[in-house]
Amino acid sequence: MELAGIFHHPFSADAYVYDKETMHLKLRTKKKDIAEVLLIWGDPYLFKKNESGEYHWQYEQLTMTKVTETEAHDYWFAEVRPPHRRLQYAFLLTDLDGNHIFYGGRGFYPPNEDTLNVPDYYFKFPFMHGTDMFKAPEWVKSTVWYQIFPERFANGNPDISPKNALPWGSKDPGVNDFFGGDLQGIIDHLDYLSDLGINGIYLTPIFEAPSNHKYDTIDYFAIDPHFGDKETFRKLVKEAHKRGIRIMLDAVFNHIGKNSKQWQDVLKNEENSIYKDWFHIHSFPVREGENGNIDGQDTLSFDTFAFTTSMPKLNTANPEVQKYLLDIATYWIREFDIDGWRLDVANEVDHTFWKTFHQMVVKEKPDLFILGEIWHDSWPWLLGDEFHSVMNYPFTQTISEYFVEEKISAEKMMYSINQQFMHYMKSNNEVLFNMLDSHDTPRILTKCGGDKQKAKLALAFMFAHTGTPCIYYGTEVGIDGGADPLCRKCMVWEEDKQDHDMLTFMKKLIRFRKDYQSTLTYGDLIWLKNENDKEVICFLRKDKNHTLLFAFNRSAAEQSIPWSDLNVDNSNSVKNIWENKPVQEDILVLAPKQFTILEIIN
Amino acid sequence: MELAGIFHHPFSADAYVYDKETMHLKLRTKKKDIAEVLLIWGDPYLFKKNESGEYHWQYEQLTMTKVTETEAHDYWFAEVRPPHRRLQYAFLLTDLDGNHIFYGGRGFYPPNEDTLNVPDYYFKFPFMHGTDMFKAPEWVKSTVWYQIFPERFANGNPDISPKNALPWGSKDPGVNDFFGGDLQGIIDHLDYLSDLGINGIYLTPIFEAPSNHKYDTIDYFAIDPHFGDKETFRKLVKEAHKRGIRIMLDAVFNHIGKNSKQWQDVLKNEENSIYKDWFHIHSFPVREGENGNIDGQDTLSFDTFAFTTSMPKLNTANPEVQKYLLDIATYWIREFDIDGWRLDVANEVDHTFWKTFHQMVVKEKPDLFILGEIWHDSWPWLLGDEFHSVMNYPFTQTISEYFVEEKISAEKMMYSINQQFMHYMKSNNEVLFNMLDSHDTPRILTKCGGDKQKAKLALAFMFAHTGTPCIYYGTEVGIDGGADPLCRKCMVWEEDKQDHDMLTFMKKLIRFRKDYQSTLTYGDLIWLKNENDKEVICFLRKDKNHTLLFAFNRSAAEQSIPWSDLNVDNSNSVKNIWENKPVQEDILVLAPKQFTILEIIN
Repeated sequence: MELAGIFHHPFSADAYVYDKETMHLKLRTKKKDIAEVLLIWGDPYLFKKNESGEYHWQYEQLTMTKVTETEAHDYWFAEVRPPHRRLQYAFLLTDLDGNHIFYGGRGFYPPNEDTLNVPDYYFKFPFMHGTDMFKAPEWVKSTVWYQIFPERFANGNPDISPKNALPWGSKDPGVNDFFGGDLQGIIDHLDYLSDLGINGIYLTPIFEAPSNHKYDTIDYFAIDPHFGDKETFRKLVKEAHKRGIRIMLDAVFNHIGKNSKQWQDVLKNEENSIYKDWFHIHSFPVREGENGNIDGQDTLSFDTFAFTTSMPKLNTANPEVQKYLLDIATYWIREFDIDGWRLDVANEVDHTFWKTFHQMVVKEKPDLFILGEIWHDSWPWLLGDEFHSVMNYPFTQTISEYFVEEKISAEKMMYSINQQFMHYMKSNNEVLFNMLDSHDTPRILTKCGGDKQKAKLALAFMFAHTGTPCIYYGTEVGIDGGADPLCRKCMVWEEDKQDHDMLTFMKKLIRFRKDYQSTLTYGDLIWLKNENDKEVICFLRKDKNHTLLFAFNRSAAEQSIPWSDLNVDNSNSVKNIWENKPVQEDILVLAPKQFTILEIIN
Repeated sequence: MELAGIFHHPFSADAYVYDKETMHLKLRTKKKDIAEVLLIWGDPYLFKKNESGEYHWQYEQLTMTKVTETEAHDYWFAEVRPPHRRLQYAFLLTDLDGNHIFYGGRGFYPPNEDTLNVPDYYFKFPFMHGTDMFKAPEWVKSTVWYQIFPERFANGNPDISPKNALPWGSKDPGVNDFFGGDLQGIIDHLDYLSDLGINGIYLTPIFEAPSNHKYDTIDYFAIDPHFGDKETFRKLVKEAHKRGIRIMLDAVFNHIGKNSKQWQDVLKNEENSIYKDWFHIHSFPVREGENGNIDGQDTLSFDTFAFTTSMPKLNTANPEVQKYLLDIATYWIREFDIDGWRLDVANEVDHTFWKTFHQMVVKEKPDLFILGEIWHDSWPWLLGDEFHSVMNYPFTQTISEYFVEEKISAEKMMYSINQQFMHYMKSNNEVLFNMLDSHDTPRILTKCGGDKQKAKLALAFMFAHTGTPCIYYGTEVGIDGGADPLCRKCMVWEEDKQDHDMLTFMKKLIRFRKDYQSTLTYGDLIWLKNENDKEVICFLRKDKNHTLLFAFNRSAAEQSIPWSDLNVDNSNSVKNIWENKPVQEDILVLAPKQFTILEIIN
């Protein structure tokens, strides 16, 4: 038995309260090393007298299920419902050679009665508190998101466009170009979005700021005048809500724009500025170019986003700054009834601030959604008292490496997805914000070298998984574009320039997602190994209502897999729910770069 | 290379902010598998152009130190000071066969230039925030604690003793006996405690409650009348502070006593009680004996501490209860200037409540110490926003298993201590509350079967380690006693009944602790393997000021170890700082059941 590979971390995604009555427990072991894991569990205070009059701890045994595997490990899972919400537990492992070991809070012990009767040797989950449980808003699970970069979606009010605005779509955007997109433009196209089927809009920043992206805020309490005014925004929220569409805004709280009154005051008054403690200033003067403050250099005398002097970092440990930002956070909820906050560069702001933020916004609106921009492993932000979700870039990267760049094997992709699933709580995974691209990355179609079929495979794969999919504006009509600023092209509204095949495909995919939402959110993910797995990947999404089989062929050749190979009970009746065509009896055939979705009916 | 044994968990005790400028990083690998680990680290935003004009991420390399080993793993450590407080990092491992691997936030990759240049493959510590950093009060590190069970320490005011109080020390205590100990008794003996050398007192509960232990609170705002009144308590704190002694009280917030007005109201008014939501009541009636509410049964209709109906569990999710308890917490700080709160059954109260508790009490008194009663692994409570320390029972158990019960080998003990050290942050370890016994366990002398030498070995071992030692009242004069109620005997004040040898020993040990406090708090722990390690354990505590060598012989025979065996540079001058005797040149000799402490002077 490989003891070095056995691991369980209490109070992590290995042991958590899933719902008020249910605990989830996971154990990691070296791959292909362990044959069986028994979970020993009970209430820590429940002792009973045996026949000899001695008190013995009362426990139950449960065989854990091997649920998944990664490059180096197997993962075992069990769920239990402790009657008194208190849990004491340990694992009894048997390896493939028949060796046994007891593994608990004090490490490894021989698996005998003496060991089993020592409470100190167990792991503890002392009490299941509802207050400590991770709880995302219920509505998020059935949301299909649509990300809008307002300057480039639609110009609904040319009167307020920047004076130097270029004709809509007249050229590929440059870093500093304006095209006049605004809030009225979004209102004008809500019916389009409703018809597309999406039911959540994520808007990149709309507050007053000089740039076209508006991540360099001047005033968080004002709508940018080129985007509209508060009345237009209020109308946008109301009209969206009428159509069952939620609105999420972008909060840029890590840093402020250099043109804000606060930073301007610092530039003017230096040490004497009343705002000097709003920032992280190491030495004065802070005027650009002086004291080493040259954009892009690593010798800045104050903290910034990256090394960008136009984005001075806010000091969120300062109570004045906290109050300022929290007032903003609650103002837009209270006055305009927004449904979510996406938090820019969320990982670089302190946890202490986000915990207060969580309390304040949830108090203002209990089902408000909090989404952090974090590109890496995010578990400490997802424990329940900070964010509900994060932008799931690790998932994006995995899809990209397999379907787009074709640089990893199906096995490596599977391990990578499994690893991430195991790393978070199930309740986290259910609401992760999945996307293939954004204003910060090249567009999916361009990443695929213009190969639309590839893009469709990646999109369908994302829609098949737990977590909520997000479509970056224009993907549905075939917009392409490389890295920023090219990924921020104007939306194409002329019907003859839209890709109608893509639009039909996206509507169908969104419809499918809605029809099977519960299975796609909560259902198990079961990978089906097959002989052909270099080019074809197959998996089930399965809950008590549906068993869906997904098969993806990333190759340029037709691929076929015998049903017998998939280890799916062939007594079942199988129905192709994606395409209107019969299912062959013995073999699953996939056209080049195609996928299909079957339902297995028992 | 055993990939299954390689592990690093960002945002845990594996990667944390040690002080405002310093990050600590740890990596776990399978024991005796890895020859070298390089840490690759840098600022995530620092890219520089190379000769070909391409941008490359700028990183530094640092060889990690193998700091310790456990049963299954080696642990590697490094500390870095990121200039911009942002960190991106990964590990380059080389195994004993010369194989290499890159290990980062996305798992394992080939260790080539391609891998090194992909930021996505790294772990991130996005920003080092002072607000998120664990910070214990500085004074705790130099504290030697003394735990007092007030009913049994000294009777300073017989007028307020319970009517049924027994003559002091007239018998071994029964569960319900009273002897009349009180606060005046403690005041009367502050000079004794000062002379002993302790500088922190932990008092078990002193608030109004019917029992002798007072864990069944009636009124948290009143001193128990048999213990004294508020003026006496105020005097106790003042007199203690005059002598440089801190006072820590016991907060029993998990449950309340059945005689409290709140629970009595529930018993009387059932569903109509205004306090019904102060508890976790599943069904009415709650009157004892009805509805299954029989003490010790597991069919209670309301939550209690364990299955004790006299201790109904408080619902700390109720804002009224929160306000009630937080008012208590701040009242005793504000009005009486106490220095610490020890939190009873702290692990069964919700984290959400403790986080608010932390904010409130630290706001009231910034250097207030928060100590949780948790018997098991406690890392989620020690992240910085809940407790400063916990009662370190796992350490107690390890010492007991080796020195007292003699049921584990020196190696197992070493692994067990190492495991716990690695599991917490260094900043946690520095203030852990170490003890050998308490009011909840048999006394150390009784655990040792009356063998005082054994008890001395255990005490000296505890004093030698990182963390703050606590002496349970009376240990210093040789009091014994089995499990509760026998561990709560009256303190022995008659000099002819005190063990003066033990008293001298304890004073010497406390003096030693104070003389070398900084080395014992911060110094490295280096175990010295020796041929004789079944019966003798040796280790160094080492910092820049001192190198102390501790050697313990748990056997009943004289043991000797050649200096050459200890791998300590024998060119050094060695001084016995514990006993007044010369050090032999070639050999270290330990009398039966004796220890010694040497200083190695360079």
